[in-house]
Amino acid sequence: MADVDRFTRDTAVEAVGPGRYRGRIDPGWSVVDGAAPNGGYVMALAARAMRAELPHPDPVTLTAHFLAPPEPGPVDIEVEVVRTSRRHSTVAARLLQEGREQTRLLGAFGDLATAQGPDRVDLLTPRLPPIEDCLDVTTAAVARARAGELPSFPIQERFDHRQPVELASWAVGRPTGRGEMGGYLRFADASADDAMDTLGLLVVADCFAPAVFNTEPGLTSWVPTIELTVQVRARPCPGYLAAWFTTRAITRGYLEEDGQVWDAGGNLVALSRQLALAPRS
Amino acid sequence: MADVDRFTRDTAVEAVGPGRYRGRIDPGWSVVDGAAPNGGYVMALAARAMRAELPHPDPVTLTAHFLAPPEPGPVDIEVEVVRTSRRHSTVAARLLQEGREQTRLLGAFGDLATAQGPDRVDLLTPRLPPIEDCLDVTTAAVARARAGELPSFPIQERFDHRQPVELASWAVGRPTGRGEMGGYLRFADASADDAMDTLGLLVVADCFAPAVFNTEPGLTSWVPTIELTVQVRARPCPGYLAAWFTTRAITRGYLEEDGQVWDAGGNLVALSRQLALAPRS
Repeated sequence: MADVDRFTRDTAVEAVGPGRYRGRIDPGWSVVDGAAPNGGYVMALAARAMRAELPHPDPVTLTAHFLAPPEPGPVDIEVEVVRTSRRHSTVAARLLQEGREQTRLLGAFGDLATAQGPDRVDLLTPRLPPIEDCLDVTTAAVARARAGELPSFPIQERFDHRQPVELASWAVGRPTGRGEMGGYLRFADASADDAMDTLGLLVVADCFAPAVFNTEPGLTSWVPTIELTVQVRARPCPGYLAAWFTTRAITRGYLEEDGQVWDAGGNLVALSRQLALAPRS
Repeated sequence: MADVDRFTRDTAVEAVGPGRYRGRIDPGWSVVDGAAPNGGYVMALAARAMRAELPHPDPVTLTAHFLAPPEPGPVDIEVEVVRTSRRHSTVAARLLQEGREQTRLLGAFGDLATAQGPDRVDLLTPRLPPIEDCLDVTTAAVARARAGELPSFPIQERFDHRQPVELASWAVGRPTGRGEMGGYLRFADASADDAMDTLGLLVVADCFAPAVFNTEPGLTSWVPTIELTVQVRARPCPGYLAAWFTTRAITRGYLEEDGQVWDAGGNLVALSRQLALAPRS
């Protein structure tokens, strides 16, 4: 990894006043070239400003409401520390562009390096084939974009992303028929020794294609997120993360997407849930 | 039901200024007599003030962070409408007592009577025995409290609550060994024709004994909620609701509790997830 990795650089914030920060939306985290930045990336940028105000570095639960997609360029983040106790800080934030609020956040931060308490995980790690049997979706997407077959997906290039062929085949008209998505990933510029920061998990929780794309053919239109909540449970160890997402209840156009993220050591590192609007077929 | 049912009465708010409301925490929604009010009840009271500011009546996703438990008595609610669009309103609120903030909320409200869009529910309704084979846990708890065998559980008396014997047996030292809880319920003063308002679902999402109590014997101490998010999906039809809660990942003392609530017509009406601190055995 370079001295400063791409994620850290593109989520950097500078204090400009009491509780006030300035950052920059980089176009390299857009879902499609020229389109809105990934919601998890926007959340991570705001979370870095929130963290800067607190004694607790890890977002144990963070909720973002997406009001309007920011454009690439400068953003202001206003942070309000609601309450700090020994174990947790509760904190709210607003992300604005030219005075217009784009994202509102509310979360609790803690310190997962020192947290202690009961452990019992009854969830199973995702049923994924070995990584060497997965499709390198990043390389495939870059090749198709260069050949002019597909638009460029900037956020795809931020990750080294491997998916079971079955789960990626919605893109060629063969969804699995179930609301599911998953695979392995790490930042594209991560070396084998690099461990992802807990803010990176906020992007991971939102950077796969929507699980609803696997429910039926032809669902590939935008799935706007209303609200995303991520529970971060542990700091990941180095290596690929394994993630699994499901959508099980689409009602009147609303859907949830639930995610689990595990590290290479088999530790659950994040749970996520979002409320989004269903695509129309 | 009386002209004003107990839930509506105990969550009533009065406008006292721009975005400012006054309500009252009633002691009848405490988990144990004299102890803190149920978090879902506090959330519903605040949500009623939030709704009063909006053209949209239903909390399609509402997050509450519990900072400190309120005491019975007056509360102030300050509501900030962040953004209103045709389909949704985004709204934040603070619930305070004597100027001290107890709860911070952030949510999106919509109108579930007019919402339209794709429907596909792959979740199954909870695997509960017929209601007539369930234990009437309200009557049982009231009888044991009157006999002096148990403390009084005021919130229990607000519901007509039926549980499978197996799921309720943690209370007599026989947990199921799995992080699960569930049963049927309706408000105690509801008639067969009464349908629960969507604000009532916020209480339902938090009013069962914690699912973690069924993981192992002896876990009956307080499980403080850090954050609770409820997605309301539909307005329930009249009749008993069926609810199912699971806790599958306890890590370093943090646990999630995921809930599903279904109405008597087999419609999914709410999904919930909370982050809480695990009890110590």
